[in-house]
This record gives sequence, structure tokens and C-alpha cells, in this order.
Amino acid sequence: MKQSIESAKEVAHATSGAIAKTASFITSSILEVGKGVFSPLSRSHSSAPRAEPGAAPGIEQYIHKEDPSLNVDITVIDYGGSEHTTRTFDDIDAALAHPRAANPHVRWINIDGLRPSVVNAVCQYYDIHTLSAEDVIHTYQRPKVEVFDDHMIVIARQLQLANDTLKNEQVSFFLFQDTLITFQEVPGDVFDPVRKRLLKSTGRFRSYKADYLFYALLDSIVDHLFPLLEAYGIAMEEMELEILEDPSTRSQQKLFSMKRDLSLQRRVLWPIRELTDQLYRDESGLIHPDLKTYYRDIQDHTMQVIDLLETYRDTASGLTDLYQTSVGNKMNEIMKVLTIMASFFIPITFFAGVYGMNFEYIPELGWKYAYPVFWGGCLSMTLGLAIFFWRKGWIGPK
Amino acid sequence: MKQSIESAKEVAHATSGAIAKTASFITSSILEVGKGVFSPLSRSHSSAPRAEPGAAPGIEQYIHKEDPSLNVDITVIDYGGSEHTTRTFDDIDAALAHPRAANPHVRWINIDGLRPSVVNAVCQYYDIHTLSAEDVIHTYQRPKVEVFDDHMIVIARQLQLANDTLKNEQVSFFLFQDTLITFQEVPGDVFDPVRKRLLKSTGRFRSYKADYLFYALLDSIVDHLFPLLEAYGIAMEEMELEILEDPSTRSQQKLFSMKRDLSLQRRVLWPIRELTDQLYRDESGLIHPDLKTYYRDIQDHTMQVIDLLETYRDTASGLTDLYQTSVGNKMNEIMKVLTIMASFFIPITFFAGVYGMNFEYIPELGWKYAYPVFWGGCLSMTLGLAIFFWRKGWIGPK
Amino acid sequence: MKQSIESAKEVAHATSGAIAKTASFITSSILEVGKGVFSPLSRSHSSAPRAEPGAAPGIEQYIHKEDPSLNVDITVIDYGGSEHTTRTFDDIDAALAHPRAANPHVRWINIDGLRPSVVNAVCQYYDIHTLSAEDVIHTYQRPKVEVFDDHMIVIARQLQLANDTLKNEQVSFFLFQDTLITFQEVPGDVFDPVRKRLLKSTGRFRSYKADYLFYALLDSIVDHLFPLLEAYGIAMEEMELEILEDPSTRSQQKLFSMKRDLSLQRRVLWPIRELTDQLYRDESGLIHPDLKTYYRDIQDHTMQVIDLLETYRDTASGLTDLYQTSVGNKMNEIMKVLTIMASFFIPITFFAGVYGMNFEYIPELGWKYAYPVFWGGCLSMTLGLAIFFWRKGWIGPK
Amino acid sequence: MKQSIESAKEVAHATSGAIAKTASFITSSILEVGKGVFSPLSRSHSSAPRAEPGAAPGIEQYIHKEDPSLNVDITVIDYGGSEHTTRTFDDIDAALAHPRAANPHVRWINIDGLRPSVVNAVCQYYDIHTLSAEDVIHTYQRPKVEVFDDHMIVIARQLQLANDTLKNEQVSFFLFQDTLITFQEVPGDVFDPVRKRLLKSTGRFRSYKADYLFYALLDSIVDHLFPLLEAYGIAMEEMELEILEDPSTRSQQKLFSMKRDLSLQRRVLWPIRELTDQLYRDESGLIHPDLKTYYRDIQDHTMQVIDLLETYRDTASGLTDLYQTSVGNKMNEIMKVLTIMASFFIPITFFAGVYGMNFEYIPELGWKYAYPVFWGGCLSMTLGLAIFFWRKGWIGPK
Amino acid sequence: MKQSIESAKEVAHATSGAIAKTASFITSSILEVGKGVFSPLSRSHSSAPRAEPGAAPGIEQYIHKEDPSLNVDITVIDYGGSEHTTRTFDDIDAALAHPRAANPHVRWINIDGLRPSVVNAVCQYYDIHTLSAEDVIHTYQRPKVEVFDDHMIVIARQLQLANDTLKNEQVSFFLFQDTLITFQEVPGDVFDPVRKRLLKSTGRFRSYKADYLFYALLDSIVDHLFPLLEAYGIAMEEMELEILEDPSTRSQQKLFSMKRDLSLQRRVLWPIRELTDQLYRDESGLIHPDLKTYYRDIQDHTMQVIDLLETYRDTASGLTDLYQTSVGNKMNEIMKVLTIMASFFIPITFFAGVYGMNFEYIPELGWKYAYPVFWGGCLSMTLGLAIFFWRKGWIGPK
Repeated sequence: MKQSIESAKEVAHATSGAIAKTASFITSSILEVGKGVFSPLSRSHSSAPRAEPGAAPGIEQYIHKEDPSLNVDITVIDYGGSEHTTRTFDDIDAALAHPRAANPHVRWINIDGLRPSVVNAVCQYYDIHTLSAEDVIHTYQRPKVEVFDDHMIVIARQLQLANDTLKNEQVSFFLFQDTLITFQEVPGDVFDPVRKRLLKSTGRFRSYKADYLFYALLDSIVDHLFPLLEAYGIAMEEMELEILEDPSTRSQQKLFSMKRDLSLQRRVLWPIRELTDQLYRDESGLIHPDLKTYYRDIQDHTMQVIDLLETYRDTASGLTDLYQTSVGNKMNEIMKVLTIMASFFIPITFFAGVYGMNFEYIPELGWKYAYPVFWGGCLSMTLGLAIFFWRKGWIGPK
Repeated sequence: MKQSIESAKEVAHATSGAIAKTASFITSSILEVGKGVFSPLSRSHSSAPRAEPGAAPGIEQYIHKEDPSLNVDITVIDYGGSEHTTRTFDDIDAALAHPRAANPHVRWINIDGLRPSVVNAVCQYYDIHTLSAEDVIHTYQRPKVEVFDDHMIVIARQLQLANDTLKNEQVSFFLFQDTLITFQEVPGDVFDPVRKRLLKSTGRFRSYKADYLFYALLDSIVDHLFPLLEAYGIAMEEMELEILEDPSTRSQQKLFSMKRDLSLQRRVLWPIRELTDQLYRDESGLIHPDLKTYYRDIQDHTMQVIDLLETYRDTASGLTDLYQTSVGNKMNEIMKVLTIMASFFIPITFFAGVYGMNFEYIPELGWKYAYPVFWGGCLSMTLGLAIFFWRKGWIGPK
Repeated sequence: MKQSIESAKEVAHATSGAIAKTASFITSSILEVGKGVFSPLSRSHSSAPRAEPGAAPGIEQYIHKEDPSLNVDITVIDYGGSEHTTRTFDDIDAALAHPRAANPHVRWINIDGLRPSVVNAVCQYYDIHTLSAEDVIHTYQRPKVEVFDDHMIVIARQLQLANDTLKNEQVSFFLFQDTLITFQEVPGDVFDPVRKRLLKSTGRFRSYKADYLFYALLDSIVDHLFPLLEAYGIAMEEMELEILEDPSTRSQQKLFSMKRDLSLQRRVLWPIRELTDQLYRDESGLIHPDLKTYYRDIQDHTMQVIDLLETYRDTASGLTDLYQTSVGNKMNEIMKVLTIMASFFIPITFFAGVYGMNFEYIPELGWKYAYPVFWGGCLSMTLGLAIFFWRKGWIGPK
Repeated sequence: MKQSIESAKEVAHATSGAIAKTASFITSSILEVGKGVFSPLSRSHSSAPRAEPGAAPGIEQYIHKEDPSLNVDITVIDYGGSEHTTRTFDDIDAALAHPRAANPHVRWINIDGLRPSVVNAVCQYYDIHTLSAEDVIHTYQRPKVEVFDDHMIVIARQLQLANDTLKNEQVSFFLFQDTLITFQEVPGDVFDPVRKRLLKSTGRFRSYKADYLFYALLDSIVDHLFPLLEAYGIAMEEMELEILEDPSTRSQQKLFSMKRDLSLQRRVLWPIRELTDQLYRDESGLIHPDLKTYYRDIQDHTMQVIDLLETYRDTASGLTDLYQTSVGNKMNEIMKVLTIMASFFIPITFFAGVYGMNFEYIPELGWKYAYPVFWGGCLSMTLGLAIFFWRKGWIGPK
Repeated sequence: MKQSIESAKEVAHATSGAIAKTASFITSSILEVGKGVFSPLSRSHSSAPRAEPGAAPGIEQYIHKEDPSLNVDITVIDYGGSEHTTRTFDDIDAALAHPRAANPHVRWINIDGLRPSVVNAVCQYYDIHTLSAEDVIHTYQRPKVEVFDDHMIVIARQLQLANDTLKNEQVSFFLFQDTLITFQEVPGDVFDPVRKRLLKSTGRFRSYKADYLFYALLDSIVDHLFPLLEAYGIAMEEMELEILEDPSTRSQQKLFSMKRDLSLQRRVLWPIRELTDQLYRDESGLIHPDLKTYYRDIQDHTMQVIDLLETYRDTASGLTDLYQTSVGNKMNEIMKVLTIMASFFIPITFFAGVYGMNFEYIPELGWKYAYPVFWGGCLSMTLGLAIFFWRKGWIGPK
């Protein structure tokens, strides 16, 4: 049983390094995972500025409070036809002002680090509502789509492992006809495969506008959820064995964390599902009808992830039952040992006590074979009890 | 583990004093929180007059029964353009009769203290249905919106901490084109940030009418739910440790109260969600179309709070499971100690009893090394049992 | 804790005598409540005639089987303008034939006691479908509305306390333009406040027809549910303390009954909610459009009762968890006592046994200070165990 | 408590013999009920031929495999006006060919025993789709309605008690304008009351066509569910007492069977509800509009049965909780006895052991009143413990 | 009880060899079933190539990575009129290029083994979207339907037993007017009965086009789920006995696996239900209207399987409760033995100890009949306790 899991794990190792890494991480430090995702503590931790409740809505109030030490990396990628240029800027105005070549028809501005003044500058330049700008800054948004006249705001979340910590990061997309702006909290994302494909910028990247780039990024976010969830699946199979063998406090805690994690992932995934539905039924005209098939593909993948998640939630709740009955079984085992030990020795201890009494007239005391007879009595009594317990199935091979 | 929570809490302290205060309150006196929210007892407590079941509907019946000692504070704020005046009245007729300047185009009448005659006077003056007037007095309404020809009645609830007690207070809004009337049960509310912003009354306050003021107040109510819920989140993390270490009766009670609180908050939040949906789809024409974005923002925030709440409910139910298995584990630990103690000594006590017997012919009694042999036998028996228990994993390092 | 509940209860007493009475009833005899509501036993009890399954539908079959000893009280109230007359009849034909004055425009015929022939006479006179007549007789109907050409049949249920017994009684309404007929199972109902208001028959009673009378009666039914449910709330708070202090079999049984009661009340309330929705969206034309606000008010109240009920169901299920962990905690406490007692004495009993052995050569026996040394050994061993248990937190102040 | 149940049961006996019979059956042999309903085993038992998975659809394949020993009873009832004839046939062709009198306008062909060739002959004659014919043969269909051009196929199920066994039998209806064909698995059904009413064939039987006959049969099926479910209700009340007094393995098993039964009945009842909805909204034109009221009546009854069922499911799940806490309470009681016994005697046994030691210098041994002092010590120690336990509430009157 | 199950099983054996085989498989190795279905491990096992997250969508990327050792079996069946030819190919181009006879109007290309280049060739030839091609390769799709201009893509899953292992295999259908292409992961499927029927290709196979063939295959997939689920039903009945008799760790594990299996099957079945709904409401025009009845038949069967599945899930959750209370009952039994043994002997051991004391003045020691009186005391004390336990119902016949 254990072996088959091991060998299976080898295969898993071979096929995907990422999964194995995730699994080992989860089994070793699942507790931290729990703490890392969406918990209020980690939110207070985050660098996201928090408005006072009741303050005026909009991004303006954040600009004066902004942390000047916050690094902002701006990358502008222009591509189209056979051309592809990547430029990095420190200054947002320079980036926005940078002229677009005639040829390349799509510009992707990726901004890592949420400095309010930078977000505001982009929103001013592209004429975006101040509440949307605030949503970018408030990094605990629910995934959602908002459609405006010539653009669309999409808030999504990327769940990924970085340095053995689960990063739950908000990604905001501003989608225009031929421009896509993405905001991320910190550098490091799940978009590298897309960047590589952009370098070639062949095929569909050439034929479609920013809508295809947006699709590719969103697809990458959803695709990265599969190895993450599979790691939970592996961790749960290992936990099953652990619970059956030794239902310790540690496994109890791990199981609780796992359930909490799954419940939190659920909170991220269902809104993402609604989001993909909305994108598929796109009413903005920003997404080329030919790309609908691609967006439906993301929808399918999201449903697959959710199916997996719901099944894992079911399994986790089954594991809780398993744990409870396992604890009960352990208790039965312990009690059986106690009962058997006590039942074997308590009666014969009494008889030994009887013949240790100092009454003057205890006839047995003077009998010649009294002592061996006493032992014989003890042994047969114990044997009788042993048979009784064996019949009950408490001792002997099962 | 504990340390990380501590340090995290320091950060939490730094960022938001309100959260820390809430958390300490909750962990120390969560029981009272439970009692304070929506429980029938506290309802009987409240100063809200209660009609006899089956009495005639409408506010008329309450006027004659009203408590003359009840204080009523009436504040009238007129603002618009660059002007802003705040007047306080004791007498409702004076307040209503006070002439409006030509310039200021919005009047906000805030009334703290629900005296039936005052409510009736307002409703007479503004031609509001007597059943709506009764709803203002009956402070246990479900949050709701009712649309009339030239006005809209909105019943909401503000949950906040005041003097370490959770206040669950009904707020009633009467929204007209350029007038907003709010009724609160007692002085002290979550609207102070809005009052400060009104003082400047720049920007959107100047461009829109009462609809924007109403938005700002509602937004303040919803925004104040975040620190409240986060406090529960922190309390739950602390409880997790407590349960794992020592599943006492006290933590059991705290957990029960927490679950009840969350279930009660749910009862407040879902209707608020429906309410925001209705406001967003406003059919009254009282809300300027440009403000829809703002109302959608409240909707988003409400959904975020509900998401958080549902996750916490999940977590609380996980904590119950954790508690139950933790109790089972404790029991196993106790039983192990008993079983080990009993198993170690019960057999050798029997042997000591045997050699305390007074049979005349017990050959061992006269042997020279019988006594050390006896000890040797006891020690090896104990050692054997120790090995048995160690193999079972009951003793020794885990 | 207990004190605050007590003082709160005093307040509760002061404000509403009915609630207090209900609560004391429930805590003392909640078991009977359970049995009284909707349970099949009590149904067999009821005087409602039961048709053989498969018998012809309609009221005809019941007439010949009717119990001649059944009392029927018929009250006819005519009101309108400034007039108001109340007449009681024994004979239904006389009641129906009694001429209506020109002035009074509404007639309310209330019939207590469901004699099939009487119901049939009314239905014949007012041309009502035989299946509706049968529904009146079959007193275990689901609350419902049925709309016909010139009338409407509404089946509701009134839950109330009479003589410390929960009465769950079916009330059937036949609503015409200017006539309302109500059928009740037994005398005694929740309509007395309405009768009192009718006596004055001012205001809205004068302006509207039977639709307002019908509203007033239905409103009285729903309003009477509040004190009933609040009594359950108080009973549950008391149970919480009881469970934490002493989770006895009795509280277990009470809790089970309470859950069953709530589940049964739910079965009554949800259909009543549907019923009020239907009345609000009235398609019969029998309800004056101006009265919609009143019917919406009933709708709101029903939703409030259901919200309360669902919260109580949540709480009851939390109490079950509380009970289970409380039993587990009790067990732990018992086991701790046993383990501590056994661990303290089992080892030293062994040592006493050792020195009671009769071996010839036990050097210690002859030592001068052996006896005090023995006691010293026993005490230090016990002390060692006491420290061990104290460290585990099993003994000493918590 | 027990008494009131007993007396209630007497009443129940008096009112309805059928219920009492059912209840006694259920309490004595509930296990078999579980096995009898819809369980796969009983399905394999059934005489229904089973097609190989993947075989060609339609009834043709069954004809050659049919069991020639299967009895088929064909009854043809022609009624209308004042005439009523009942004929029985062995041969389906003779039955179909039998000429219809001019007068009687409705023919009801009832066929007991599902011989494929007979079903096929009927379907050929009446031009019914081969898949519908197969549905008749496959007696594990979900209740459903299928509407065709001039006829309607309705599959329902009758649950009834026969020879103390729960019969869950499929009934298939082919409804034409003036012909109704019913197929049943075995002789014996719930239609006898309808047959009796047909004999008179007065009233509505004379005025309507086959649609009224169909209504009467369906109504009889639904009406027979009430006594069945009530029997479960009585059984559950008895189980409550049993569980509180002695939570044995047997009651555990009975409870499990009951829950399974209810879950299975639910599987039958919800589709029947959909079925009645569809019939009420009839789009086939086969049901006279005047009969809608009757079909709505069935709908109401089905909803009542389902309400009852869902409440019972709630109750059954409450009983499971009750059982679990009851087992825990029993355990606590057992442990209390053990702990009290052990605590009383373990310390004083040690003291007896001490004075049984053979040390040379034990001063107490020579004291004159040592023996009574020893007894005094033992008694006071025991008394002290007794007070301790009494304070804890473990001994003495509750 | 056991007997009846046995005899029932014999009947089951007789009627269907497949069911019996399944059942024995499940009861013996249910654990492996659990692991085999949809678990992440087995997915990593599968030969399905896995794209890097974020890679370009479409099948192109897989072609270069394809495993050259993968066997592909291509079978082309042409049928129609009275002709029927079956040809097998190794090379996909040859298969596609093979000319179609004039007469046979339907071609079924079945491909076992998912080699990307082969799938790509088919998609190129039939002009199928590259994302659909990728879905064929990615064998962990959710069952779904996608409608295109002249064809329809259906992804389904076949669950079947092969060599005592549960195979959960994806089947992809490309449905054209007169061509059906099916892709399967490995050779061996549930379609053999359809192949046999094709050989005759009479009746409906001749009259309809590829739509009927597609129906027959899908019907075969759904029909094969019945014996599978029935096997779980039988296994659960056996488990019920096992749990009641001896709630071992093994049965706990089996139960957990069963629940997981059912939860996973649910994940397959609900999308299949949606799929059949979509096919029934077909909007593509590819399915002949006359066949709607057949597709509705599949729909009915799917609903029946799901009903069965949901009931089994209910039962499995009831079994978990049963297990937990059964463990509690076992514990009670063990504790009773311990308590009875300890209570019988602990008091009399104390008395024996008393008379073993060495006090100089113990008057009883010198009494003549002290010894028999002692025994008498012990026996009567034990008898007293026996009566006490017997009254409590702990000993003696139940």
C-alpha cells in the first residue's frame, strides 16, 4: 500500500517537478499554507494600504499616504507582425509617453508593485474610473469583471508557490482594444510561459489584438491551479494512512488546516468561474468572436478545478470522520489492554490476599499441595478469562 | 507558532487600532457579544416599544404610550456649493419649519432617539406611510428597501463596537431628491468620517444631491464590518491553538458563542446584500445614473464581507470537529497513563501477594536468593511490558 | 453570567407577560410541546374526520359520518359606517339567511367547530367547490391560497399557547368582496384584538371591505408567532448553561424535542411565506391595491419570523455539538480522577505488598528505620506523580 | 410519558386499524422494510427481465426470453351512463378485440403481470412507442410523464403493505381519451376503493372520461402514503424512548434502516411531485380543464406527504445525535461506577497492605486500639471521598 | 438475516454474472477502487501527455513530444443497407483516405490509443478546432457537448471493470451527418454489444444515420453504470453487518474509500446528465427529430443512476454514523467488563488485606468461624453487586 504510493510518487516526480515540490511543501508545512491564504492576519501583513472605514471613495486619498520605499517595475512589451520589443521603465510617465511604433499593434504594460501615484497616473492617462483605481490598490478584491465603454476591468487572483510559501496575489487587468495593462502586487508571476511565447509572437498572437494576450494570461493563471490542487490530493492520501495508523494531534491540526485552505480556495474559485462565464458571454465587443472558443476552454478548465476542489472538500470531510472513528478505535484498543490486564490479575490477587490472611483457622494453609493447587487455580482462572476474551475477539489473531 | 501570531498581532496593532481593540474585546468577552446580538433577551431590553400582537397597524398607537424621558437629538445639516451649516434642535417642528437657504441644495436631518411622536411628525410633514413610520419604531426590522413615488425608505443595521459592547442598531433612511432623513436608536454612530468630509463638501458632494450623501453613509456602514469580522478571524486563530492545547469547557463555550454570533451576523448580512442589489438596479429615479458605479462598489464590498463570513462559518464548524477530536485525543492520553500504570504494577502486586501467603509449604520462601530473584522477575516483567507499550507507540518519544 | 440572565429575565417579565409564561411553560414541559405539534399521534387524536384512502373526493362522504355531539358556534358580525352588530347562531341556515342591513357593508361569519354538514351548507350557499370544503374538514392542510372567480380560499395555521399546551390549529378563510367566512377547529383564537378594533370599526375598517378584515386577522396570526419563538430563544439560552454544567439525559431529551419542534414550525412557516407572497402579488382583484402595503408588511413579518427560526435551528444544532463535547469533557474529568487515584496508590500498594512477603531473607525487614523510610518512599513517589499530573494540567488550579 | 403515548396509541388504534397494523409491523421488522425498498438485492429478486447493457432498445428483445410460467390477469371494465360491466380475460388479443358497447364511454384495461408479449400486443394495438413498452417491463423506472399525440404515458409507483412486507410496485398508465390501460407487476393493489366507486359510476365518473378515472387511481396511490408515513412517525417516537433508556445495538440498526427507508421513499416521492406538477399544467389536452382542481388536490397531498417525509428525515437525524450522546452518557455512568468503586477501595487497600508488612519495627502494630483506629481511618477516608463525589454530583439523588 | 442475504446473492449470481463479479471485486479490494478512480495519483500515472501550465493552447505542442511506442488501433466500420465491412488500419492516413462505398451510408472510425499526431491528422482532415483536438488528448475532461457548424464534439467517460480494476476512461465522439469518430485511451470498451448489433445492421441502424450509432454507443455507456452501482449497493449491505458485528479499522477504511468513490462517481455523473439534457434539446440539427425519444430514454436512465447514487451517498453517510455509534457501543461493552471485574474484586481484596494485617489485637483473627464467615461476606457482597449490575442491565440476558 505504502509502496504503491511511493512508486506512484516517483512517476509523479518524473512527470512534473512542480507537483512534487508542492506536495513535499504541503506535507511538511501545511500549517503555514493555511495561515498564508486569505487569513485576516496575512492581510494586515500585506503592503496594501487600508482606507479608514467611511473615508471618501477613490484613489486620491491614498496618494499622499503612499510608502515611498515601494519599488515599482514597469515593463512595456510592444509586439505585432514580426516585431517584438521589451522595455523597462522606472517612471510611469516615461512609460506612458513612449511612442508606439506603427507596426506593432499590441502593447502590454505590466506593473509590479502597487504605488497609488503610479496607478493614478495610468488611470488618468487612460481615463479610468477612480473606484476601479482603488480596486487595484485594495488587494483583497473578489475576482470580477467590469465592462466600460472602451475598456474592461478584470480582477483575478493568482495562487502559486514561491519559496515554499503560498502566494495569493491579486492581478488587475485593464483591457483595451490594442492595449493591456496588468498590475501585480510583487514581482514574480505565472506569466513567464506567455512571455516566452510572445517572443516568437507567431500564430494567434499576430492575428488577434490584446484580447488574445489577455486570454493567454488568464489561461496561465487557471492552468497553474491544477498542480496546486493535485498536491492537496496527494497530501490527503498520505494523511489517510497517517490517520489510520496513528491519529495524532498533529494530523488533526493538518487536517483542519487543509479544510480551511480548501474552503478559502473555494472562495477564490467560484467568483473566477462567474468571471469566465461573463467573459465568454462578452458584451463589450472587446473580445473577438473567434476567440470565444478559447474563453470557453478557460471556462471548462475552471469547472474542472472546481469539480476537483469540491471532491477534495468531500474527501476532507470524510477524513474528519475517519479521524474521529480512528480515535475511538484507538481508545477501544487501549481499554482492551487495560481490561484484559486488570481482569487477569485482579481475581487472583484476591485469592493470594485470602491466603495471606492471618486467621487462626484457615484449613487450606496446612494442606500439603495447597501451593501448587493455588497456582493451578490461578492458571485455570486466567485461562478461562483468556478464552472468554478470545471468544469476544479481544485477543488472538483477528 | 505562537510567536508568529504575536508578531503578526503587533503589525495588526500598528496598522489598525480598531481591529486590535475589537480582537481583545472578543477574546475576553466573546460570550457577551453573543448575548448582545439579536438575541431575544437583548431585544426585550431594548427601548423599542412593542405593539401587542394583533393591534392596529401604524404608528398612531405608540404615540400615547411613548416614554417622555426619552432624549431626542435632531441635527440638521444644510450643504451645497461652498456653504455648510449645522444646526441642532430639540423640537422637531422647529427643525422641520426651519427655512432652507436658496444656495445649499441638500438637507440631512439626523434624529437620534426614536420617540414615536417625533417620527410621526416627520412622516406627517413628508407624507410618509404610517406603516413605514412603524418600521422605524420597531427596531428589529430586516434590512430592506421600499420604493415610493418621490421617496425611498431604506432600513439598514449598523454593527459596531462601543464601550466594549457590540451595538447592533437599526438605521432608517428616508431618501428624497434633495433631503435625507436618518433615524437612529441612540447617539453615537459610524457616520463621523462622512460628517468630516461634508464639512469640506467638495467634489462629488457638491455635484450630486442627497443620493450621494446616502451612498456615503451606507458605504460607511458596510466598511465598518471589515474590522469587526477580522476580529473574529483573529479570535478563531487563537482558539485553534487553545483547543489543540487544552480543550476546556471555556473554549467550548466561546466556540459556541462564536458560531451563534456568525449565524446572527449572517442574518443581518444577507438581507443587506439583497438591499444593495436593489439599490444598484434602482427603479425609483432617485439615484443618479452616474452614481451606479458607487452603488456597485458597495455591492462588491458586501459580497466580500459575506464571503469572509461564510468562510468563517466553515472554519468555526471545522473548529467544532477539532474540539471533538481533541477531547478524544485527551481521553486517549489519560487512558494510556492509567493503562500503563495499572499494567506495570498489577501483575507484580499479584506476585508480591503470592509470597505473602501463609501456606505452610511454599518452597520458594526458604530459598536464599528468592528475594533478589523476585525483584529481578518484577523488573523484567515491567521491562517486557515497557517494550510492548513502546512498540505500540504509547510511551517514548513520538 | 447567571445573574445577567436573571436580571434580563426580569425585564422580559416586565415588558411582556405572555413571553415569560411561554418560556416557563417551555422549560418545564417542552417534551409535551414536541408531542403536541404536528406529530402523527396528535393528528390521530384530533377530531378531524379522516377519509379512507381512495374514497371519493369531496365533502359529501363526511356528512353521514359526522359526530353529532360536535358543538358548532356561529358568530356573524356585520359592520360598516358607524354600525356594528354581533349575532350568534346555532343553526347555519338561520345564520346564512339572516338579512344584511343596507348600511353595514362587511359581514364576517366565524364558525368554530368543523361539522361537515355545516361546512357543506356554507359551501352550497356560496357556491364553493367541494374539494375546498373537504380541505376545511381535513385539518392537516399545508397553508395555501386558491383563487377562484369571485372568491379566494386561504388555509393558514395559528400556533398559540392555551392552557399550557401548544395549539396548532387550522384556520380556513373564504374571502369574498364584502364577506369573510372563517372556520376554526375549536373555540378560542388569536383574533380577540381584531374583534376589539372592529367594535370601533373606525379608520381603515370603514374605508375598505372584507379585504382589510382578512388582512387584520392574518396579521394577528403572524404577530402571535413572535412571542412564541422568543420563548424558544430564552429556553435555548437556559439550556446552554444547563448543558455546560451538567449534560444530563434530561437536557438531551429537551434538546431533541426542541429541534423537532423547530423543524415542525419550519414546516408551517415556509408555506405561510409562499402564501403571503401570493397574496401580495394578488391576481384575484379581491384585494384593494391600496392595501398592498399592508400585505407587504405581513410578508416582512413572516420573513422576520423565518429568519429567527432558521437562526434558532442553527443554534439548536450548535447546542447538540455543545452537548456532545460536554459529555466528552465530563468523561475526561471522570477518567482523570480515576487515573490520578489509581496512579497514586497502585505503585505504593505494590511496595507494601513486597514487604508483606514471607521470604526468609529480606534484608530490609530487619532494618531499624525501614518503616519510616518506606513511608518516605511512598510520599516522594506520590509527590513525583503529583508533579507529573500538575504539569499535565490535570490537577491544581486551572 | 410512556402512559400518554400508550393512551395515544389506543386512540390511534381506534381511529385507523391500518395505521396500527403498519406501526406494529415496522417496529417489529423494520430491518426487512429497509431491505425491501428499492435495494439492489430486491431488484435482482424481482421478476423484471433485465436487458444486457448495450442491447438494442425496445421491447422486442424481451419477448423471446419471456418466462412462460408468468401469470397474466386481464380485467376489462366498461362503464358509462348507468352501465358497468367487468370482464376478465386470459388472452390479450381477445381482450383487445372485445367490442365496446355504444353506451359505456370509458374502458379501463388493467393487466396484472408483466409478460413482454402481452405488453407488446397492447402497444401494437394502440400504436405505442417500443421504448414506452420497455419502460413498462423495466420495473425500476423513475416516476414520470410522457406526452404523445393522442395519449400520455405515466409511470408511478405504489407503496403498500401486503402480508407484512412493503411492496414497492411500479404502475404504468396509458391514458387515452376514453381508454385507460394500467400495468401492474403482481395482483393486489390500492385501487379497490376506486373499483367500488366505479360500480356505482355515478357523479363525476359519468360526466368525465378516462381522465377522471386516471385521477381517481392516482389519488388513491397518494392517499395510501399517509398511513404508511404515519407508521414511521409512531415508530420514531417509540425509538426515542428506547434510545434514551437503553441505546442498544439493535436500536442503532433499526435507526439506520429507518433512515435508509426514508431516503429511499424520498427518491420515490420527489419525482411523483414533478409528475403531479406536469399533470396539473397538462399540455396534452387529455385532461378536462374542469378537472384541474382535482389534479391540484393531488399536488397538495403530495406536498403534504413530502413535508411529512422531510420532517421525519430531520427527526431521524436528530435521533442519531440522540443515540450518540446517549451512548456517551451511558459510558459516563459506567465510568462513574468504576471510578467511585476504585477510589473508595484503592487507598484503604494500600493501608491494609501497609499493616500487613513484616518490618520488625512498625510501632503501630503493637498499639492497643490500632485496629479500631485503622477502621476509623478507612471510614473517614471513604466518607471524605463520598462527599467529594457528592459535590461533583456523581452520587446521591439528582 | 445473513442467510437471506446469502440466498439473495445466489439469485443475484444467477441473473447477472457481471454484478456478482463486480461485487466480489469491490468487497475484496475496495481500497484499490478508491485509488483507481479520478485520484490525482492515477492521473499522473496515465499516459495522457500533460502540457506545461501556460503553454500555447492547441494540439500542436504535443505532436513533437509524443511517445513513439504508443500503439494505435484504427478500426473503420462502414455499414448501411445490407452491407457491413470492418477494416483495421495502423496508419491513419490510409484509414482516412480509404474510399467509401456508394451504398453504406455510415462510417464509424474508432481509434484506440491517443497518439497526438493521429488525433491531429483526423482533425486536419475533418477540419476540427485545435482546442477540441487537445481535449481528446487531455483525458481528464469533464463530460461535455460542443456544437459546431456541421459537427458536434461530445466528451464522455466510460466506467467499467477490467481485470478487477476500475477503468475510468475518456471517450471522445466527433459526430458528423454520416460519420462518427470515437477516440478511446486504450483498447477494450463497453461497445461490443453495439458492434454485434451493427453486424446485422437492421432496423433503426439502417433507417438513421450516424446519430443512431452515436445514441447506441452512449446508451451502452450509461447502461453499464447500473451493474457497477448495484455492486456498491451489495457491498454496503455487507458492510452494515460487518460494522455492527466488529467495527474494525479495516471496515472504517473501506467505508471511507466507498464514500470517496461515490463522491467521485458523482463528479462524473452530473455532467453526463447535463450532457444528455443538451443532446435531447439538440440545436445542431445533427440528431433526427424521431430519435429524440431515444435520447430522452438515455436521459431517464442517467437520472435513475444519479438517484441511485445519491441514495447510496445517503446510506454511506448513515453507515459512518453507524460506525461511530458502534465503536461507542463496543467501548461501553469493554468498560462494563472492566467495571464489573473491578467492582467484584476490589472490595473483597481490601477485606482480605485487612485480615492479613499484623496488628497484635485483631479480635476476629482468633474466632473459630472467622474464615467461613469471611467467605460468606465476600460472596454476599459480590452477590449484592451482581444484583446491582443486573438491575442496571449490565449483566444477564438482554
